[in-house]
Amino acid sequence: MRVDLPAYLAERRRVVDEALARFLPPAETSPPTIHEAMRYSVLAGGKRLRPILVLAGAEVAGGRLDDVLPTACAFELIHTYSLIHDDLPAMDDDDYRRGRPTSHKVFGEAIAILAGDALLTLAFRLVAETFRDGRLDPAILPRVLAEITEAAGTAGMIGGQVVDIQSEGRAVEAEVLEEIHTRKTGALIRAAIRTGALLAGAAPAPLAALTAYGERLGLAFQIVDDILDVEGSLEALGKTAGSDRRKKKATFPDLLGLEASRARASRSARGFRATT
Amino acid sequence: MRVDLPAYLAERRRVVDEALARFLPPAETSPPTIHEAMRYSVLAGGKRLRPILVLAGAEVAGGRLDDVLPTACAFELIHTYSLIHDDLPAMDDDDYRRGRPTSHKVFGEAIAILAGDALLTLAFRLVAETFRDGRLDPAILPRVLAEITEAAGTAGMIGGQVVDIQSEGRAVEAEVLEEIHTRKTGALIRAAIRTGALLAGAAPAPLAALTAYGERLGLAFQIVDDILDVEGSLEALGKTAGSDRRKKKATFPDLLGLEASRARASRSARGFRATT
Repeated sequence: MRVDLPAYLAERRRVVDEALARFLPPAETSPPTIHEAMRYSVLAGGKRLRPILVLAGAEVAGGRLDDVLPTACAFELIHTYSLIHDDLPAMDDDDYRRGRPTSHKVFGEAIAILAGDALLTLAFRLVAETFRDGRLDPAILPRVLAEITEAAGTAGMIGGQVVDIQSEGRAVEAEVLEEIHTRKTGALIRAAIRTGALLAGAAPAPLAALTAYGERLGLAFQIVDDILDVEGSLEALGKTAGSDRRKKKATFPDLLGLEASRARASRSARGFRATT
Repeated sequence: MRVDLPAYLAERRRVVDEALARFLPPAETSPPTIHEAMRYSVLAGGKRLRPILVLAGAEVAGGRLDDVLPTACAFELIHTYSLIHDDLPAMDDDDYRRGRPTSHKVFGEAIAILAGDALLTLAFRLVAETFRDGRLDPAILPRVLAEITEAAGTAGMIGGQVVDIQSEGRAVEAEVLEEIHTRKTGALIRAAIRTGALLAGAAPAPLAALTAYGERLGLAFQIVDDILDVEGSLEALGKTAGSDRRKKKATFPDLLGLEASRARASRSARGFRATT
């Protein structure tokens, strides 16, 4: 079966965007500031890669999209909370994200910190909601929670951000860079596919195959993101709205050059054993 | 039955302290800084009120303490993460907590933010662990998650902190102060008792009684905390390690005076309808 990938992604993204707008509390909910801030960052657009992977994992394993939609959105909330906190002055100190001022620039640092906290908290509420109508077996919920917290915690995303911060301004080797990316970005991408499949009751063999796919996709995605960041920065040279990340943090293009990075991403995405 | 309350609390606190030290990743887990920071703040002492209330709620409803211990500890992790974030320069800007330098003073702001995020994430891992050995029915897990996320999110603790920040430096009425405390402190205390009871399979009538108790206890606790803060500040006059909270934020003693605050706490704890 051939899939029209751009059309597939656009359709899934529309479903996710619509669900996110519905699951987030209305902006006027008291106290309004925090709910405005949550909606500002989540509804700022984005590729919705992680929720789409939850849906895809469930679909491959024979599940229904509607059943897993709240958990799919939970992954986007976790991703967005991490962006809000990473952008803070004490961390990457970024003024712009997705072409708009970052949360702390609009709402102040205190509300930005709390908006991140609130999105992480709401994510687990949505995971619970996934089991509310009784269609899914709650016996899998402990395993799903373990999967998500492992990927989002210090073994995964948070640990990756710590290593990233501690490597700042220092020369890093390709291995360390890959560790940073595997934890910071890869872990949640891998968990998204696995969680979708787990919710749909996937057997061990297809789950293992999807896991391997998720790991390669995560790495390829990060390299491509690095490449686009370089190309974007080159394009935006002289403009102030560009990301400052490249100035401080190591990227694959820094280490390998643009051409070799493209080849590396392509190999990872195709499933060849990656060798640098 | 008469209970020797100080001995009961000391014994429960010992059980909780021992479990927290076991559930937190060892300080040397990679990357070490973040795990050191998590342990530093959680194992700094504290009354362990919330986990003890989870245990008490379960006990009253006929449950086993061992079965609910991970979730009891989850409440302490959520409480501690909120303290770390509240102490940040962008929020209350406190240098000391429980007589020791605050997390950001020791580890820097970035690690303090991430340590808070990691504790909140680990809390939900512990809730999942509670159901791992199959003794408790996972069918109650969605409700438990809803209970905790409601209390810790923008309808509860985070919402209270937002109102608190936004009231800073302004004259607030007793009603607003009570709203701040109900959300910021009361919601999690109420949820702790309820969650213990829910995990032990409490029926609606005892659950309602425990809920009413939790609500009164939460308010009494906050007023007493305010009083101790005033008395502590008076005692520590001239020392630098005291809390700066009173300088900026409204408290019950500010509004009602010390004597009336004591009477108000006493009435709330005894269950009389509180009237200011």
